[in-house]
Amino acid sequence: MLQVMTPDEVLSLIDGQFHPLNIQERVSLYDAVGRVLAEDVCAGEYVPDFDRSTVDGYAVRASDTFGCSDAIPAILPVSAEVLMGQAADFTLSPFECCAVPTGGAVPGGADACVMIEYTEDYGDGTVGILKPAAPGQNMIFRGDDVYPGKPVLSAGRLLSSQDVGALAAMGITEVSVSKRLSVGVISTGDELVPPEDKPSAGQVRDVNAPMLCAMLKAYGAEVRSFGIVRDDERLLGEVVRRAAEGCDLVLISGGSSVGVKDASCRIIESMGTLLLHGIAMKPGKPTIMGKTGSGKPLVGLPGHPVAAYFVTKLFVLPLLARLEGRIAERYTVTARLTESVGANHGRAQYGCVRLERRADGLWAHPIRSKSGLITSLAGADGFFCIDRDCEGLPGGAAVEITVCSGD
Amino acid sequence: MLQVMTPDEVLSLIDGQFHPLNIQERVSLYDAVGRVLAEDVCAGEYVPDFDRSTVDGYAVRASDTFGCSDAIPAILPVSAEVLMGQAADFTLSPFECCAVPTGGAVPGGADACVMIEYTEDYGDGTVGILKPAAPGQNMIFRGDDVYPGKPVLSAGRLLSSQDVGALAAMGITEVSVSKRLSVGVISTGDELVPPEDKPSAGQVRDVNAPMLCAMLKAYGAEVRSFGIVRDDERLLGEVVRRAAEGCDLVLISGGSSVGVKDASCRIIESMGTLLLHGIAMKPGKPTIMGKTGSGKPLVGLPGHPVAAYFVTKLFVLPLLARLEGRIAERYTVTARLTESVGANHGRAQYGCVRLERRADGLWAHPIRSKSGLITSLAGADGFFCIDRDCEGLPGGAAVEITVCSGD
Repeated sequence: MLQVMTPDEVLSLIDGQFHPLNIQERVSLYDAVGRVLAEDVCAGEYVPDFDRSTVDGYAVRASDTFGCSDAIPAILPVSAEVLMGQAADFTLSPFECCAVPTGGAVPGGADACVMIEYTEDYGDGTVGILKPAAPGQNMIFRGDDVYPGKPVLSAGRLLSSQDVGALAAMGITEVSVSKRLSVGVISTGDELVPPEDKPSAGQVRDVNAPMLCAMLKAYGAEVRSFGIVRDDERLLGEVVRRAAEGCDLVLISGGSSVGVKDASCRIIESMGTLLLHGIAMKPGKPTIMGKTGSGKPLVGLPGHPVAAYFVTKLFVLPLLARLEGRIAERYTVTARLTESVGANHGRAQYGCVRLERRADGLWAHPIRSKSGLITSLAGADGFFCIDRDCEGLPGGAAVEITVCSGD
Repeated sequence: MLQVMTPDEVLSLIDGQFHPLNIQERVSLYDAVGRVLAEDVCAGEYVPDFDRSTVDGYAVRASDTFGCSDAIPAILPVSAEVLMGQAADFTLSPFECCAVPTGGAVPGGADACVMIEYTEDYGDGTVGILKPAAPGQNMIFRGDDVYPGKPVLSAGRLLSSQDVGALAAMGITEVSVSKRLSVGVISTGDELVPPEDKPSAGQVRDVNAPMLCAMLKAYGAEVRSFGIVRDDERLLGEVVRRAAEGCDLVLISGGSSVGVKDASCRIIESMGTLLLHGIAMKPGKPTIMGKTGSGKPLVGLPGHPVAAYFVTKLFVLPLLARLEGRIAERYTVTARLTESVGANHGRAQYGCVRLERRADGLWAHPIRSKSGLITSLAGADGFFCIDRDCEGLPGGAAVEITVCSGD
């Protein structure tokens, strides 16, 4: 008989039992944001590929300007003008200067640019430089940004828009990313009707399927819905097997009553190995996890929507990240509790909050609810955890909030 | 002549000059995550619609169990069994009990449920209750979750997956959301070539267009790309006008040299009103903003990719939020600087960081770069701001980081 595990033990179990699938595909730069990079990316060329001015003004040899001032300008003939987008395929002679725009190419020989504001145009083909320039001033040199072989992005990164910019700068218009994972979602329970239907007495709408679909979609996975299966072990087994054939991970939602939970355990055992039977958390205890003979993960989620929500956030999404090799840290924000929260059951306790910004910082209003009251989560901005050893937190206590608005 | 504005002044300008478009569309529950709710949502019915047990066990009248114990159980005949998904359309008589599963309907008359673990089945149609139940124990009552008219979600909310769950619970399978905004992106500059092309001497790849497309896509807007327009005021004016006809907002990226910036200003003035000419920030100063005669926003972004990135994050996305009525708070995480960062130019200074979790908390490594070095942003986890009045921050100083990985 498997023991109930702590949340940390479950995360270790996931790391130990499951491994990256390493299924890649090539996507265009324009489709790359939000995808998981499947290869290390190094620069293949110099960026920029030529010395550039960062100001509108004149390229000079810095030494030609040493000692100049408003009173005694360095007077230099303008030997050329580089236009935007044009090469500067000549060398600046000593005691000459060359007009350049912001971003324009700086000719060989020049090692600094002087802002137009610090020059005077005498109208006779010469300008006066009113302020000495230091070597390198107002310039970006060839390869300052990157040079061939410089590591830029690491495999496992969730690509952000600035990463896309960097890829564009290097001329990398296609990258290898992890294939989107496909997740099968099965709801079980004789009491469930689809959200579209009006429940009869004793029935409730299936909340978990649409919620899980939204979570998985927001995460970046593809969802295959297998509908609502009634509490029939043979039938449920068939659907789980079918889902496991076509998907990378199967979620069996509901069936939290003892009999159905046992049926889900037996189905998982018949397909491979049961790895987990209960998590020491509240809500979320009646969670099971296993894998098929070929190593494909199967997860039985609690039927209570709030419990299913936390188990999915805390374990199913990290399991997906493990499978696709995604390295993603979830950061928390610190807030103070507006009121005390009790806890005394020896299990890690998760609760949702609404956040409020006040003059003295961020405050978290705990949302009180009985397990299963999904609308209590509606409008939540984030959640926090009270450790199993903690008997509760007083009002004003600082807590770490995982923000979940919009995902 | 317009004065340079501080970042806060620009945000006030946006609020004052632009207003929600109020263009809505109906979407299915299954497409609602990540969309902006355009209506207040109230419950239309009771959830749950019947009294439910939260445990596997027996429904009782609590008063019939008062005073019972392991030693002296309350012995009650089992008058009925409610199955999952079935109605409990009878009333429990005094001194009787009724078997119910977790989530099952509780008959009238009963006001508590006793977990099966605290009962003993005598096998003769009676059970012993070993522990007294308080009224309401282990039950969710009709309407505990929501009742008709209860406000659940407010207009402007970015719908999260738990919101989707709440909508499903209430049988709301379609909602009104703000239509996705359409943003036109125009790149200008004779030096620009598409990322696919190899730049000749003096040319660089257009980094801003793909980066802006990624940012806008991650935000939830639709992007229309108008390609690269060379530095020609008449031509640029034509493209800006065309973009303004078909899009909700137009971004003109680049043209940071004096002449082109002036051309953008003249184009905006010819189409309506120039509202902003320069922001007191670094990088990002050469930003302009205006609106057409019909009130459509036009933004001229700096050509430097890093500057364009910050201006888009800090002002363009809030402008989009204003147009679609999105209420979205960006939370920050607190981290300590691994090294000192200087600043002394009287402008708000933005810089990117890599975050590292250490035993003693979160640390931020400042990424040092010259303006325009986009690959310096690659791999960044977030950014922070040094106020204009601050001359720099020492190593170890706590800073507020806006996390930007994955978006």
